[in-house]
Amino acid sequence: MAKNDLNQADPEQVAGNGLLHRRVFLGGGAALLGAGALGLMTARPAVAAPPDIADWMRAPGAPLSGHGQRSRFEDSVQRYVGPPAGGTTGAGSSRTPLEKLSGIITPSSLHFERHHSGIPDIDPGQHQLLIHGLVERPLIFSMEALHRYPMVSRIQFLECSGNSRPNLSAQAPAGSCGEIHGMVSCSEWTGIPLGVLLEEAGVAPQSRWLLAEGADAAAMTRSVPLDKAMDDALIALYQNGEALRPEQGYPLRLFLPGWEGNISVKWLRRIKLTSGPTMTRDETSKYTDLLPSGKSLMFTFPMGVKSVITSPSGGLTMQGPGLYEISGIAWSGAGSVRRVEVSADGGRSWAEAALSEPVLSKALTRFRMAWRWDGGPAVLMSRAIDETGAVQPTRDALLAEKGSQVSYHYHAIQNWQVAENNEVSNVYV
Amino acid sequence: MAKNDLNQADPEQVAGNGLLHRRVFLGGGAALLGAGALGLMTARPAVAAPPDIADWMRAPGAPLSGHGQRSRFEDSVQRYVGPPAGGTTGAGSSRTPLEKLSGIITPSSLHFERHHSGIPDIDPGQHQLLIHGLVERPLIFSMEALHRYPMVSRIQFLECSGNSRPNLSAQAPAGSCGEIHGMVSCSEWTGIPLGVLLEEAGVAPQSRWLLAEGADAAAMTRSVPLDKAMDDALIALYQNGEALRPEQGYPLRLFLPGWEGNISVKWLRRIKLTSGPTMTRDETSKYTDLLPSGKSLMFTFPMGVKSVITSPSGGLTMQGPGLYEISGIAWSGAGSVRRVEVSADGGRSWAEAALSEPVLSKALTRFRMAWRWDGGPAVLMSRAIDETGAVQPTRDALLAEKGSQVSYHYHAIQNWQVAENNEVSNVYV
Repeated sequence: MAKNDLNQADPEQVAGNGLLHRRVFLGGGAALLGAGALGLMTARPAVAAPPDIADWMRAPGAPLSGHGQRSRFEDSVQRYVGPPAGGTTGAGSSRTPLEKLSGIITPSSLHFERHHSGIPDIDPGQHQLLIHGLVERPLIFSMEALHRYPMVSRIQFLECSGNSRPNLSAQAPAGSCGEIHGMVSCSEWTGIPLGVLLEEAGVAPQSRWLLAEGADAAAMTRSVPLDKAMDDALIALYQNGEALRPEQGYPLRLFLPGWEGNISVKWLRRIKLTSGPTMTRDETSKYTDLLPSGKSLMFTFPMGVKSVITSPSGGLTMQGPGLYEISGIAWSGAGSVRRVEVSADGGRSWAEAALSEPVLSKALTRFRMAWRWDGGPAVLMSRAIDETGAVQPTRDALLAEKGSQVSYHYHAIQNWQVAENNEVSNVYV
Repeated sequence: MAKNDLNQADPEQVAGNGLLHRRVFLGGGAALLGAGALGLMTARPAVAAPPDIADWMRAPGAPLSGHGQRSRFEDSVQRYVGPPAGGTTGAGSSRTPLEKLSGIITPSSLHFERHHSGIPDIDPGQHQLLIHGLVERPLIFSMEALHRYPMVSRIQFLECSGNSRPNLSAQAPAGSCGEIHGMVSCSEWTGIPLGVLLEEAGVAPQSRWLLAEGADAAAMTRSVPLDKAMDDALIALYQNGEALRPEQGYPLRLFLPGWEGNISVKWLRRIKLTSGPTMTRDETSKYTDLLPSGKSLMFTFPMGVKSVITSPSGGLTMQGPGLYEISGIAWSGAGSVRRVEVSADGGRSWAEAALSEPVLSKALTRFRMAWRWDGGPAVLMSRAIDETGAVQPTRDALLAEKGSQVSYHYHAIQNWQVAENNEVSNVYV
């Protein structure tokens, strides 16, 4: 069936090149489209008898266990581990394989990593947190003491400020969705509102910032405005229901919702209240962007409104023409995602995607769209709009605004090209 | 300080025996209580210098990895594995250690298990799903085909119909919260609305039920009303972002939100549409309750409104008088939790707990309350009310209604006794 025939024949098409109305994702599904609208999708007719009895039904299976593992058939689902950075073992990053996941929760075992000198092996019985500096009462907390404090839980994303940097290259790099964009993950974080601990220490009137220091070998340090600390900052103790993983700061980390990841200091050992930013090594040698004017952007904390289609995406192979689910994630450091639009014709026409519940502030939001691929060339794009009305920019617009020297906070629209040979790849145009 | 003094002195107390207003959990925390209201909680004064440099800061830590693990200091957090049931290995249950978790997501490695003949080791490249019976077109689906269908994601609980059964004993059993109540867990489930697949097969007019069959060695089977299948049933492929775990039905399971766990048939291989229930072995020999009248309750699908305090709870040890967080989970098979009330004086007075966002339909909801324990005897209780107005019953009321022969759907209020010797234990009165 030629592309134009398909476009004209299908009353459910809502944008060019085969995008179908999102009502298929609402309520009971196909019934709302009418029985014939989706037609036979990918199933094949069967004889009316059960499938053969497989070997795994012929003997009792594996027993119960104290701590479960995933299937051996999923062993290939791994983080992408980058080369060591900065000359020391344990410095560098790994990325979440976004194209192999669905939903909004990232399994903790696959959460992206960014370490400055490896993962410390901290004994929670010995670890302490100090709050000092411009306070009325310097305080020190054991982990046992912290576990008695009032806590809150929130599902929120964490994104490295350097995420998606490969797309700053002059030529579109080959790579999977996770290789290019996998330094974003989302978890349920549980911890103590930092404001509770600061009030207990007594914030001195001249205090405006704080210094947060990690207990890794790099003693990673960042400066945090006091307003953020008193707003929604957490001292996080749990991730996805269980104790933090060592890679995420065990036994406790700072968590600053919506802000660039490195400032949510892991393995937190010290908070010092100050009158201004401390201008630490980690915030002057890194995490600044040189502008065309010669000035540098510094303390660019919130992550911009962003989305990416995780499937189909770079390196995946289509199974020929027919119906597919287009699925992806959207997020914004400014709050919740209001809308995601998808294009299958390189941006000439757009249609609104279905958002899976829950849609939460500063969390990943899963969007989905049904797509009937006619087998011809297509360019898939997604564009997020957040609750403030901010719209995810194109790559050209982002570079025109920020220049070619930027290295952080890349949040432009991603284009995936679907070719007639079933291959999907990263393209800029 | 005597109990009565505490009651009278504290303007934040909202119910007897030290329960404090939930506003401490809202917004920035202690600031809203006024700086002095919580007072010094559990921290100790510190000299204004950083803690000693620990060994783990003196050398680079562990490197990046493809698939992460938890801390070795958390190895003791394990499911409670019950004895084999029914004479075969792999039949029985394990329970989530609720008292060691927080938030609403259960880590997949700690999700409770209930198997009827162990965990099959299924190759997704060979596994197929058949839909047949009273349909227009019998269909068979490969896993590759299913992955192209429209999906939805939802955070929802799963509870075994036999959960909390230890509390049916005449004497209150010793045990932890997880040992008694740990056959409930909560995940983000992603899958295809079952209605989409049934519409594709074409539901015959006389079809009212379906039979769901698993590919384990027990070929576990249950009958499901068609209305539920067309409402919110999923063919689940992902759990907490990644492919289902084998213990939860890899590569696919039926998921029926809010209903007793065993009917969400794991390792799903076959759905047969029928005009009535099939009355299978698994739904006649089990999962029915004998009433005082001599009749049996059958097909009691939705789980009742329920809550339990996870901390402090049975087997945990208090650290002496002072401020604590009371934390727990609430849920209902009928929808979302509207309110949770907590008592610290054995039910004489109650106060409303704070609910952590998100509060979702048929999901666990985390509730919390601040409590200043005076060191005297206390009995902690929680009582959930759901969106339909249903109120969690006392044990006495539940047994008066259902009699002493019931074995399933126990959802009564749990009482934890806090003794002056710092021990916490299960009591009925």
